[in-house]
Amino acid sequence: MAVILLSGGLDSATVLALARSRGHRCLTLTFDYGQRHRHELAAAGAVARALGATEHREIVLDPRAFAGSALTRGATGVPKGRSESEMGAGVPVTYVPARNLVFLSIAVATAESVGAWEIHIGVNAVDYSGYPDCRPAFIEAMQRAARLGTRAGVEATGSVTIQAPLIAMSKADIIRLGVSLGVDYSLTHSCYDPAGPVEKPLACGECDACVLRRRGFEAARVPDPTRYATQGRSR
Amino acid sequence: MAVILLSGGLDSATVLALARSRGHRCLTLTFDYGQRHRHELAAAGAVARALGATEHREIVLDPRAFAGSALTRGATGVPKGRSESEMGAGVPVTYVPARNLVFLSIAVATAESVGAWEIHIGVNAVDYSGYPDCRPAFIEAMQRAARLGTRAGVEATGSVTIQAPLIAMSKADIIRLGVSLGVDYSLTHSCYDPAGPVEKPLACGECDACVLRRRGFEAARVPDPTRYATQGRSR
Repeated sequence: MAVILLSGGLDSATVLALARSRGHRCLTLTFDYGQRHRHELAAAGAVARALGATEHREIVLDPRAFAGSALTRGATGVPKGRSESEMGAGVPVTYVPARNLVFLSIAVATAESVGAWEIHIGVNAVDYSGYPDCRPAFIEAMQRAARLGTRAGVEATGSVTIQAPLIAMSKADIIRLGVSLGVDYSLTHSCYDPAGPVEKPLACGECDACVLRRRGFEAARVPDPTRYATQGRSR
Repeated sequence: MAVILLSGGLDSATVLALARSRGHRCLTLTFDYGQRHRHELAAAGAVARALGATEHREIVLDPRAFAGSALTRGATGVPKGRSESEMGAGVPVTYVPARNLVFLSIAVATAESVGAWEIHIGVNAVDYSGYPDCRPAFIEAMQRAARLGTRAGVEATGSVTIQAPLIAMSKADIIRLGVSLGVDYSLTHSCYDPAGPVEKPLACGECDACVLRRRGFEAARVPDPTRYATQGRSR
């Protein structure tokens, strides 16, 4: 059994497909932390079903711990129409405090509870390096804390590993990999500021996540199945 | 502002008193993770009020992540009447998977959200060393993961520190310190298997937590204010 962090976005869907292709039974975790783009919760459930997760858990977290991000604030704050160099300058306003620290911690607890030895996370350090908790050094530090802070660290029985198979891949490479594994990217959701109903969201096309996703499909020469509210406006 | 992990037990109450004595404004966090000894949640609130916490938050966590411990299982499993050498052998059945990893992660997110730079935790490696997530090496690893996985790790603005002021103290030393700081230990709750109403619990006197607490008061020569269901039976 592997525990997969599944946001409902493109990267984590690819991670789940990769784990499934390697024969893993998968327990998927998605987190409701008060994010404005709640469409991704429905997307995560759809992706888990489509890719044959053994069990899918939606974990509710107290949103007070994650205040101070454009993704959890009221109605404003998601930047639009930025270039990739603008995105790369400093920590983005869409950074959510210690999000992957919390998500991975709960994945470690879950893995130890169910007897799983692998955690897979779709972090990526290439296309968008501004998030501190997507860097290899963080993943390595987290792996060490997880080993020392669990039963395995005392009993030397081996330890849960944190795997980040996409960490050195471009968005286009990730999309090509996913397509080769049969991922239906129309089920996935990346936009930070979606419109429309939860089950059939419209992506804004202009937030950082939309820009990276759209350019990834273009670079991979794969038709983009995303339903955009502003088709083509930011191209 | 300091973020204090407050379980409602003796150690974390002392940590809160120590932080307050050093002039910190304190945001206290207590966690409802499905523990059977829910009396400690009420105790944490009472301790936070008594010691003047600026804000007290009770954080609900999905109990599915913490299955597989005697503290979260149904009605049985808390060992009774063990000697300290028995307690020290291996990881106790009362170990909760990755509990301090999760608690500290949420404390780091909270600290970053509210602009606090210190997290205080009442782990103790002397009296009861079987818990992997109470060891100095774990706290150090967690501090590193917290630095790398947050904004401070990128912006080099300084980082939240995790302080464990009791880590090298005996239970008796902790109690003497707390008494000197005016902690009312009758408000605290340690027992893993309490009886009676939540607001006025009776400690079993025989679980590991009760045995360590009782012996701590004896060694400190401080009157034990705990209300035991089985007064004196296990002495």
